[in-house]
Amino acid sequence: MGADLKGAEIDVLISEVGPRDGLQSIRQIMPTEAKHRWIRGLADAGLREIEVGSFVPPKLLPQMADADAVVRRAVAIPGLTVLALAPNLKGAEHATAAGVHKVTMPVSASRAHSLANIRKSPEEAIEEVRHVCQFRDGLTGNRPSVEVGVSTAFGCSVEGAVSEDWIFRMVAMLLEAGADSVGLSDSVGYANPLQVKRMFRRLRVEAGSKAGAAHFHNTRGQGLANVVAALDAGVTTFDASQGGIGGCPYAPGATGNIVTEDLVFLLESMGLRTGIDLEKLIALRPAIAEALPGEALYGYLPDAGLPRGFAYAEEALLNRLNR
Amino acid sequence: MGADLKGAEIDVLISEVGPRDGLQSIRQIMPTEAKHRWIRGLADAGLREIEVGSFVPPKLLPQMADADAVVRRAVAIPGLTVLALAPNLKGAEHATAAGVHKVTMPVSASRAHSLANIRKSPEEAIEEVRHVCQFRDGLTGNRPSVEVGVSTAFGCSVEGAVSEDWIFRMVAMLLEAGADSVGLSDSVGYANPLQVKRMFRRLRVEAGSKAGAAHFHNTRGQGLANVVAALDAGVTTFDASQGGIGGCPYAPGATGNIVTEDLVFLLESMGLRTGIDLEKLIALRPAIAEALPGEALYGYLPDAGLPRGFAYAEEALLNRLNR
Repeated sequence: MGADLKGAEIDVLISEVGPRDGLQSIRQIMPTEAKHRWIRGLADAGLREIEVGSFVPPKLLPQMADADAVVRRAVAIPGLTVLALAPNLKGAEHATAAGVHKVTMPVSASRAHSLANIRKSPEEAIEEVRHVCQFRDGLTGNRPSVEVGVSTAFGCSVEGAVSEDWIFRMVAMLLEAGADSVGLSDSVGYANPLQVKRMFRRLRVEAGSKAGAAHFHNTRGQGLANVVAALDAGVTTFDASQGGIGGCPYAPGATGNIVTEDLVFLLESMGLRTGIDLEKLIALRPAIAEALPGEALYGYLPDAGLPRGFAYAEEALLNRLNR
Repeated sequence: MGADLKGAEIDVLISEVGPRDGLQSIRQIMPTEAKHRWIRGLADAGLREIEVGSFVPPKLLPQMADADAVVRRAVAIPGLTVLALAPNLKGAEHATAAGVHKVTMPVSASRAHSLANIRKSPEEAIEEVRHVCQFRDGLTGNRPSVEVGVSTAFGCSVEGAVSEDWIFRMVAMLLEAGADSVGLSDSVGYANPLQVKRMFRRLRVEAGSKAGAAHFHNTRGQGLANVVAALDAGVTTFDASQGGIGGCPYAPGATGNIVTEDLVFLLESMGLRTGIDLEKLIALRPAIAEALPGEALYGYLPDAGLPRGFAYAEEALLNRLNR
């Protein structure tokens, strides 16, 4: 059904980050051809938005060295919104030249984490966003939107708790700098559902229509629990990674990103349309595994299979109406 | 802190089912001494309610053959509520003689599952509950309460969807038969948060103070997401199994019961007091692993560890008040 639903209405947008966030977090380098096949397959399965690469120096992230080629092929896929990460103006310029529809910029709320990670304070990182937005405003051809994810928004493995008021001062600064949307990221698996509900409610109040995506990790098993809380707060865009690729900082099972397959199952079983065909999505796994020998693929649904009598949200509604 | 909090107020009761549901689902037989050390350790970590065994013919479940001895030692632990499963009057008589505080009786909502599993229809299983309640009413000494869990309440791997109206007809019949509480079980990992919220809200309306525990499995990764939904519906008792013991019907990672460690972390981080000390709980794992050689222990938190700056619900509240 995925292909047929590609143009249809959806309730929740899943922004697939596996080809970027996933692949940049592992040692192995997926060949460009395999990346393209994966992205093509994701689009065929009904994914409408994919972050396909990162425009950073290849010396830092050799896994992302082919970002330009990957973006150029991805933007040729009809109906697909193509995202790429850019840490600064130079990266945004390259991403724009390659044709991306959205540039994503991570900004860390934790001062300690930000300095350790990119050797910039949060305020300096926000200035980078301003430069990229000014660059965007001057464009006449392809004019990507600028999406910022505030990382360590729910706590930091270096600093511990991060002030919520500080998060929202940053949100205001980022909007003032010109960001098209600002989301909140729990990249270290610290968030809890109560906090998620409170923070995303406040984000909607403070950022209005510019409230961005929720990015959760499953490090402590709480990823989908946080999704339920975020749905309650009105979040309609979630980042996820097929097979949870990108992160097992601890023992087996302790994944990084929430798993796209499990997220789609959760949402569709709740009656929320994602436009994604689970069978098609799961069918992509052997090729991914082949392109990343020895790398673990996570997810419960692919092993357990769909429940007997499972119906996608759209079908379930029709079944109820016809009953 | 667990020991100090044992008498303190809690917001959510975790009913540990590992020594029963967990151990009866695996091939290996845990020695009686190891069971006792585990139960003792759980109580020391702050668990207040533990299902310790099943009074079924040892021929059927040799893992539970020592239920009488296990119960007799468990009821000597101060402050601990001891549960045991009994499928029928005979089992309930033995459990009562051993001194249990609560007898649990599973009744399956799915006719096909019930007939395949215990060769009784749901109505016949409800009659067993009636006999046990009549037996309870006639007792003068130890008089255990009778708790029923309606299994396959969210769908069945044999039948598929199970009618919600039928579930609540069963709830009414079980209450009429004399059950002290009736809970809902998703033993096959079919439930979704929307359904969970709807069903437990209705349970509260229809069963009032006799609304029982939520029993979720993590088969499709949705266990803790369902907990968040059940909390919204006012559920305050959850079954869970330490290390998720008892169930990996599929590939590694696809656990059965939700993992006590991850559940405690989720609840405490949401500001809900469980009275359980996570460090003490996690410290029990090596002995469990030793008593069940080769058996997998699940859970994300034990691998990832507590977040930096983590505070239990009680501490977090005090920190906020003192700020």
